[in-house]
Amino acid sequence: MNFCSECGHPVTVKTPPGDHLPRFVCEHCDAIHYRNPRIITGTVPVAPDGRILLCRRNIEPRKNFWTLPAGFMENGETTVQGALRETDEESMVRGENPVLISVISLPAFDQVHMFYRVDMPDFNYGTTAESNAVDLYHLDDIPWPDIAFRTVERTLKHYLELQTQPFYVLNDHIDI
Amino acid sequence: MNFCSECGHPVTVKTPPGDHLPRFVCEHCDAIHYRNPRIITGTVPVAPDGRILLCRRNIEPRKNFWTLPAGFMENGETTVQGALRETDEESMVRGENPVLISVISLPAFDQVHMFYRVDMPDFNYGTTAESNAVDLYHLDDIPWPDIAFRTVERTLKHYLELQTQPFYVLNDHIDI
Ligand SMILES: [Zn+2]
Ligand SMILES: [Zn+2]
Repeated sequence: MNFCSECGHPVTVKTPPGDHLPRFVCEHCDAIHYRNPRIITGTVPVAPDGRILLCRRNIEPRKNFWTLPAGFMENGETTVQGALRETDEESMVRGENPVLISVISLPAFDQVHMFYRVDMPDFNYGTTAESNAVDLYHLDDIPWPDIAFRTVERTLKHYLELQTQPFYVLNDHIDI
Repeated sequence: MNFCSECGHPVTVKTPPGDHLPRFVCEHCDAIHYRNPRIITGTVPVAPDGRILLCRRNIEPRKNFWTLPAGFMENGETTVQGALRETDEESMVRGENPVLISVISLPAFDQVHMFYRVDMPDFNYGTTAESNAVDLYHLDDIPWPDIAFRTVERTLKHYLELQTQPFYVLNDHIDI
Protein backbone atom coordinates (compact mmCIF):
# COMPACT_ATOMS: atom_id res chain seq x y z
CA MET A 1 0.00 0.00 0.00
CA ASN A 2 1.42 3.34 -1.11
CA PHE A 3 -1.57 5.70 -1.25
CA CYS A 4 -4.65 6.34 0.87
CA SER A 5 -7.62 4.64 -0.79
CA GLU A 6 -9.93 7.34 0.62
CA CYS A 7 -8.17 10.59 -0.30
CA GLY A 8 -5.30 9.55 -2.59
CA HIS A 9 -2.47 11.03 -0.51
CA PRO A 10 0.65 8.94 0.29
CA VAL A 11 0.34 6.80 3.41
CA THR A 12 2.92 6.36 6.14
CA VAL A 13 3.50 3.40 8.46
CA LYS A 14 3.11 4.05 12.17
CA THR A 15 1.41 2.70 15.26
CA PRO A 16 -1.79 4.66 15.95
CA PRO A 17 -2.43 5.86 19.54
CA GLY A 18 -3.85 3.01 21.64
CA ASP A 19 -2.89 0.42 19.03
CA HIS A 20 -0.14 -2.18 19.38
CA LEU A 21 0.89 -2.71 15.74
CA PRO A 22 2.14 -0.46 12.93
CA ARG A 23 -0.56 0.35 10.35
CA PHE A 24 -0.81 2.21 7.07
CA VAL A 25 -2.13 5.59 8.15
CA CYS A 26 -3.03 8.71 6.18
CA GLU A 27 -1.84 11.94 7.76
CA HIS A 28 -4.04 13.91 5.36
CA CYS A 29 -7.48 12.43 6.18
CA ASP A 30 -6.53 10.40 9.32
CA ALA A 31 -7.76 7.11 7.81
CA ILE A 32 -6.18 3.96 9.27
CA HIS A 33 -5.92 1.15 6.72
CA TYR A 34 -6.07 -2.22 8.46
CA ARG A 35 -5.04 -5.43 6.74
CA ASN A 36 -6.56 -8.68 7.92
CA PRO A 37 -6.41 -12.36 7.01
CA ARG A 38 -8.69 -13.68 4.31
CA ILE A 39 -10.86 -16.78 4.45
CA ILE A 40 -10.70 -19.59 1.92
CA THR A 41 -13.87 -21.64 2.23
CA GLY A 42 -14.53 -24.98 0.54
CA THR A 43 -16.03 -28.44 0.75
CA VAL A 44 -15.37 -32.16 0.86
CA PRO A 45 -18.18 -33.33 -1.46
CA VAL A 46 -19.30 -36.90 -0.68
CA ALA A 47 -21.17 -38.86 -3.36
CA PRO A 48 -24.09 -41.17 -2.49
CA ASP A 49 -21.71 -44.16 -2.59
CA GLY A 50 -19.18 -42.55 -0.22
CA ARG A 51 -16.62 -41.57 -2.82
CA ILE A 52 -15.32 -38.02 -2.59
CA LEU A 53 -15.07 -35.49 -5.36
CA LEU A 54 -11.78 -33.89 -6.37
CA CYS A 55 -11.09 -31.23 -9.01
CA ARG A 56 -7.97 -30.97 -11.18
CA ARG A 57 -6.91 -27.34 -11.21
CA ASN A 58 -7.08 -25.58 -14.56
CA ILE A 59 -5.26 -22.49 -13.28
CA GLU A 60 -2.01 -21.66 -11.55
CA PRO A 61 -0.79 -22.09 -8.88
CA ARG A 62 -0.58 -25.89 -8.88
CA LYS A 63 -2.24 -26.29 -12.26
CA ASN A 64 -3.16 -29.94 -12.98
CA PHE A 65 -2.89 -30.95 -9.32
CA TRP A 66 -5.99 -32.23 -7.55
CA THR A 67 -7.84 -30.18 -4.99
CA LEU A 68 -11.10 -29.78 -3.12
CA PRO A 69 -13.47 -27.06 -4.36
CA ALA A 70 -12.61 -23.88 -2.43
CA GLY A 71 -11.97 -20.18 -2.87
CA PHE A 72 -11.99 -16.76 -1.26
CA MET A 73 -15.06 -15.94 0.81
CA GLU A 74 -16.78 -12.83 -0.57
CA ASN A 75 -18.29 -9.89 1.29
CA GLY A 76 -22.02 -10.34 1.84
CA GLU A 77 -22.02 -14.12 2.10
CA THR A 78 -21.65 -16.67 4.89
CA THR A 79 -18.82 -19.19 5.14
CA VAL A 80 -21.31 -21.89 4.09
CA GLN A 81 -22.68 -19.90 1.16
CA GLY A 82 -19.13 -19.25 -0.03
CA ALA A 83 -18.22 -22.94 0.25
CA LEU A 84 -21.30 -24.02 -1.71
CA ARG A 85 -20.76 -21.30 -4.33
CA GLU A 86 -17.17 -22.38 -4.92
CA THR A 87 -18.27 -26.01 -5.11
CA ASP A 88 -20.78 -25.15 -7.81
CA GLU A 89 -18.27 -22.96 -9.69
CA GLU A 90 -15.52 -25.57 -9.67
CA SER A 91 -17.42 -28.85 -10.03
CA MET A 92 -21.06 -28.04 -10.89
CA VAL A 93 -22.08 -29.83 -7.67
CA ARG A 94 -24.83 -28.48 -5.40
CA GLY A 95 -23.67 -29.58 -1.95
CA GLU A 96 -26.15 -30.29 0.85
CA ASN A 97 -26.03 -30.64 4.66
CA PRO A 98 -22.76 -28.76 5.26
CA VAL A 99 -20.79 -29.75 8.38
CA LEU A 100 -17.62 -27.87 9.29
CA ILE A 101 -14.68 -30.30 9.60
CA SER A 102 -11.50 -28.20 9.43
CA VAL A 103 -10.18 -24.73 10.21
CA ILE A 104 -6.51 -24.25 9.32
CA SER A 105 -4.63 -20.97 9.75
CA LEU A 106 -1.75 -20.03 7.45
CA PRO A 107 -0.15 -17.08 9.25
CA ALA A 108 2.63 -16.80 6.66
CA PHE A 109 0.01 -16.21 3.98
CA ASP A 110 -2.55 -14.27 6.07
CA GLN A 111 -5.21 -16.86 5.30
CA VAL A 112 -7.60 -19.17 7.14
CA HIS A 113 -8.88 -22.23 5.27
CA MET A 114 -12.22 -23.75 6.28
CA PHE A 115 -13.73 -26.93 4.84
CA TYR A 116 -17.25 -28.36 5.10
CA ARG A 117 -18.24 -31.94 4.46
CA VAL A 118 -21.25 -31.80 2.10
CA ASP A 119 -23.47 -34.47 0.60
CA MET A 120 -23.83 -34.66 -3.17
CA PRO A 121 -27.52 -35.21 -4.00
CA ASP A 122 -26.60 -37.48 -6.96
CA PHE A 123 -23.67 -38.44 -9.18
CA ASN A 124 -23.83 -35.31 -11.32
CA TYR A 125 -20.74 -33.16 -11.63
CA GLY A 126 -18.74 -31.55 -14.40
CA THR A 127 -15.65 -29.67 -15.47
CA THR A 128 -15.62 -25.86 -15.37
CA ALA A 129 -13.33 -22.98 -16.30
CA GLU A 130 -11.45 -23.61 -13.05
CA SER A 131 -11.29 -27.43 -13.21
CA ASN A 132 -10.06 -29.32 -16.28
CA ALA A 133 -11.12 -32.64 -14.72
CA VAL A 134 -13.51 -33.59 -11.91
CA ASP A 135 -13.72 -37.13 -10.59
CA LEU A 136 -14.87 -39.28 -7.67
CA TYR A 137 -12.28 -41.14 -5.59
CA HIS A 138 -12.58 -44.04 -3.19
CA LEU A 139 -11.11 -43.13 0.19
CA ASP A 140 -8.24 -45.61 -0.24
CA ASP A 141 -7.51 -44.34 -3.72
CA ILE A 142 -6.82 -40.63 -3.16
CA PRO A 143 -3.90 -39.44 -5.34
CA TRP A 144 -1.84 -38.09 -2.41
CA PRO A 145 1.29 -37.12 -4.41
CA ASP A 146 -0.89 -35.06 -6.75
CA ILE A 147 -2.84 -33.10 -4.13
CA ALA A 148 -2.42 -29.37 -4.74
CA PHE A 149 -2.29 -27.87 -1.23
CA ARG A 150 -1.37 -28.94 2.28
CA THR A 151 -4.62 -27.67 3.75
CA VAL A 152 -6.48 -29.91 1.29
CA GLU A 153 -4.26 -32.88 2.23
CA ARG A 154 -4.81 -32.31 5.96
CA THR A 155 -8.54 -31.91 5.51
CA LEU A 156 -8.78 -35.12 3.47
CA LYS A 157 -6.74 -37.03 6.09
CA HIS A 158 -8.97 -35.61 8.82
CA TYR A 159 -12.03 -36.73 6.88
CA LEU A 160 -10.53 -40.24 6.72
CA GLU A 161 -9.92 -40.18 10.48
CA LEU A 162 -13.53 -39.17 11.09
CA GLN A 163 -14.62 -42.52 9.61
CA THR A 164 -13.32 -44.26 12.75
CA GLN A 165 -13.21 -41.52 15.41
CA PRO A 166 -15.77 -39.40 17.27
CA PHE A 167 -16.51 -36.20 15.43
CA TYR A 168 -14.32 -33.21 16.01
CA VAL A 169 -13.26 -30.21 13.95
CA LEU A 170 -9.61 -30.15 12.96
CA ASN A 171 -8.23 -26.84 14.22
CA ASP A 172 -4.66 -26.50 13.12
CA HIS A 173 -2.16 -24.23 11.45
CA ILE A 174 0.63 -24.48 8.88
CA ASP A 175 3.49 -22.14 9.64
CA ILE A 176 5.42 -21.80 6.38
CA MET B 1 -12.53 3.18 -1.76
CA ASN B 2 -11.87 6.14 -4.08
CA PHE B 3 -8.20 5.84 -5.07
CA CYS B 4 -5.84 3.01 -6.02
CA SER B 5 -3.72 2.16 -2.98
CA GLU B 6 -0.86 1.11 -5.27
CA CYS B 7 -0.54 4.05 -7.71
CA GLY B 8 -2.87 6.74 -6.29
CA HIS B 9 -5.09 7.11 -9.38
CA PRO B 10 -8.89 7.09 -9.04
CA VAL B 11 -10.47 3.62 -9.10
CA THR B 12 -13.56 2.56 -11.03
CA VAL B 13 -16.06 -0.20 -10.24
CA LYS B 14 -16.38 -2.97 -12.80
CA THR B 15 -16.38 -6.74 -13.13
CA PRO B 16 -12.92 -7.94 -14.26
CA PRO B 17 -12.75 -10.51 -17.10
CA GLY B 18 -13.42 -14.01 -15.77
CA ASP B 19 -14.79 -12.65 -12.49
CA HIS B 20 -18.43 -12.71 -11.40
CA LEU B 21 -18.63 -9.65 -9.12
CA PRO B 22 -17.88 -5.94 -9.53
CA ARG B 23 -14.56 -4.89 -7.96
CA PHE B 24 -12.63 -1.69 -7.42
CA VAL B 25 -10.20 -1.71 -10.33
CA CYS B 26 -7.46 0.72 -11.35
CA GLU B 27 -7.34 1.43 -15.07
CA HIS B 28 -3.93 3.06 -14.62
CA CYS B 29 -1.94 0.17 -13.08
CA ASP B 30 -4.50 -2.66 -13.60
CA ALA B 31 -4.65 -3.46 -9.87
CA ILE B 32 -7.84 -5.20 -8.69
CA HIS B 33 -8.73 -4.30 -5.10
CA TYR B 34 -10.65 -7.15 -3.48
CA ARG B 35 -12.60 -6.70 -0.28
CA ASN B 36 -13.17 -9.72 1.93
CA PRO B 37 -14.82 -10.52 5.27
CA ARG B 38 -12.82 -10.06 8.43
CA ILE B 39 -12.49 -12.54 11.29
CA ILE B 40 -13.32 -11.70 14.90
CA THR B 41 -11.68 -14.31 17.11
CA GLY B 42 -12.28 -14.75 20.84
CA THR B 43 -12.73 -17.10 23.77
CA VAL B 44 -15.08 -18.46 26.41
CA PRO B 45 -12.66 -18.51 29.37
CA VAL B 46 -13.62 -21.17 31.95
CA ALA B 47 -12.28 -20.80 35.52
CA PRO B 48 -11.14 -23.86 37.54
CA ASP B 49 -14.55 -23.92 39.30
CA GLY B 50 -16.51 -23.88 36.02
CA ARG B 51 -17.54 -20.22 36.13
CA ILE B 52 -17.02 -18.30 32.92
CA LEU B 53 -15.32 -14.96 32.53
CA LEU B 54 -17.07 -11.94 31.04
CA CYS B 55 -15.72 -8.43 30.35
CA ARG B 56 -17.66 -5.18 30.63
CA ARG B 57 -16.82 -3.11 27.57
CA ASN B 58 -15.00 0.15 28.21
CA ILE B 59 -15.40 1.34 24.62
CA GLU B 60 -18.18 1.90 22.13
CA PRO B 61 -20.07 0.24 20.60
CA ARG B 62 -22.07 -1.28 23.48
CA LYS B 63 -20.00 0.35 26.18
CA ASN B 64 -20.77 -1.08 29.65
CA PHE B 65 -22.42 -4.19 28.22
CA TRP B 66 -20.86 -7.58 28.98
CA THR B 67 -18.98 -9.54 26.36
CA LEU B 68 -16.52 -12.35 25.79
CA PRO B 69 -12.92 -11.37 25.03
CA ALA B 70 -12.63 -11.08 21.23
CA GLY B 71 -11.29 -8.86 18.48
CA PHE B 72 -10.07 -8.67 14.90
CA MET B 73 -7.63 -11.37 13.84
CA GLU B 74 -4.36 -9.80 12.69
CA ASN B 75 -2.17 -10.69 9.73
CA GLY B 76 0.63 -13.06 10.72
CA GLU B 77 -1.22 -14.87 13.48
CA THR B 78 -3.46 -17.94 13.72
CA THR B 79 -7.10 -17.87 14.79
CA VAL B 80 -6.03 -19.39 18.12
CA GLN B 81 -3.18 -16.92 18.65
CA GLY B 82 -5.57 -14.06 17.94
CA ALA B 83 -8.15 -15.40 20.37
CA LEU B 84 -5.55 -15.81 23.14
CA ARG B 85 -4.05 -12.38 22.44
CA GLU B 86 -7.44 -10.69 22.70
CA THR B 87 -8.20 -12.61 25.89
CA ASP B 88 -4.99 -11.35 27.43
CA GLU B 89 -5.56 -7.78 26.21
CA GLU B 90 -9.14 -7.60 27.51
CA SER B 91 -8.99 -9.63 30.73
CA MET B 92 -5.32 -10.35 31.54
CA VAL B 93 -6.13 -14.08 31.30
CA ARG B 94 -3.76 -16.55 29.64
CA GLY B 95 -6.13 -19.13 28.18
CA GLU B 96 -5.10 -22.76 27.73
CA ASN B 97 -6.34 -25.78 25.75
CA PRO B 98 -8.35 -23.89 23.12
CA VAL B 99 -11.28 -25.79 21.54
CA LEU B 100 -13.30 -24.19 18.75
CA ILE B 101 -16.99 -24.09 19.69
CA SER B 102 -18.65 -21.55 17.35
CA VAL B 103 -18.31 -20.04 13.88
CA ILE B 104 -20.94 -17.41 13.10
CA SER B 105 -21.08 -15.45 9.84
CA LEU B 106 -22.47 -11.93 9.72
CA PRO B 107 -22.90 -11.29 5.99
CA ALA B 108 -24.46 -7.85 6.59
CA PHE B 109 -21.26 -6.80 8.35
CA ASP B 110 -18.73 -8.77 6.30
CA GLN B 111 -17.51 -10.55 9.41
CA VAL B 112 -17.06 -14.08 10.73
CA HIS B 113 -16.95 -14.55 14.51
CA MET B 114 -15.11 -17.55 15.96
CA PHE B 115 -14.97 -18.52 19.64
CA TYR B 116 -12.77 -21.00 21.48
CA ARG B 117 -13.47 -22.51 24.87
CA VAL B 118 -10.27 -22.04 26.90
CA ASP B 119 -9.27 -23.09 30.42
CA MET B 120 -8.10 -20.42 32.85
CA PRO B 121 -5.04 -21.77 34.69
CA ASP B 122 -6.12 -20.03 37.93
CA PHE B 123 -8.48 -17.33 39.22
CA ASN B 124 -6.30 -14.42 38.09
CA TYR B 125 -7.81 -11.81 35.83
CA GLY B 126 -8.03 -8.04 35.70
CA THR B 127 -9.46 -4.95 34.06
CA THR B 128 -7.71 -3.40 31.07
CA ALA B 129 -8.04 -0.36 28.82
CA GLU B 130 -10.78 -2.24 26.93
CA SER B 131 -12.67 -3.67 29.92
CA ASN B 132 -13.81 -1.54 32.85
CA ALA B 133 -14.90 -4.64 34.77
CA VAL B 134 -14.04 -8.35 34.48
CA ASP B 135 -15.89 -10.98 36.50
CA LEU B 136 -16.68 -14.69 36.74
CA TYR B 137 -20.28 -15.86 36.29
CA HIS B 138 -22.01 -19.11 37.20
CA LEU B 139 -23.69 -20.62 34.16
CA ASP B 140 -27.17 -19.98 35.57
CA ASP B 141 -26.28 -16.42 36.45
CA ILE B 142 -25.25 -14.93 33.09
CA PRO B 143 -26.60 -11.36 32.69
CA TRP B 144 -28.43 -12.06 29.43
CA PRO B 145 -30.10 -8.62 29.03
CA ASP B 146 -26.70 -6.98 29.38
CA ILE B 147 -24.80 -9.10 26.84
CA ALA B 148 -23.22 -6.82 24.22
CA PHE B 149 -23.52 -8.82 20.98
CA ARG B 150 -25.71 -11.55 19.50
CA THR B 151 -22.73 -13.68 18.50
CA VAL B 152 -21.61 -13.62 22.14
CA GLU B 153 -25.12 -14.56 23.32
CA ARG B 154 -25.35 -17.45 20.84
CA THR B 155 -21.90 -18.70 21.75
CA LEU B 156 -22.70 -18.62 25.47
CA LYS B 157 -25.97 -20.49 24.90
CA HIS B 158 -24.13 -23.05 22.78
CA TYR B 159 -21.58 -23.48 25.56
CA LEU B 160 -24.47 -24.14 27.98
CA GLU B 161 -25.92 -26.72 25.58
CA LEU B 162 -22.56 -28.47 25.36
CA GLN B 163 -22.85 -29.27 29.10
CA THR B 164 -25.58 -31.81 28.25
CA GLN B 165 -25.03 -32.65 24.56
CA PRO B 166 -22.36 -34.39 22.49
CA PHE B 167 -19.75 -31.95 21.27
CA TYR B 168 -20.33 -30.07 18.09
CA VAL B 169 -19.27 -26.72 16.72
CA LEU B 170 -22.07 -24.20 16.32
CA ASN B 171 -21.97 -23.10 12.69
CA ASP B 172 -24.53 -20.41 12.14
CA HIS B 173 -25.12 -16.98 10.73
CA ILE B 174 -26.95 -13.80 11.70
CA ASP B 175 -28.46 -12.02 8.72
CA ILE B 176 -29.09 -8.46 9.90
ZN1 LIG C 1 -6.33 9.79 3.27
ZN1 LIG D 1 -3.40 1.85 -9.64
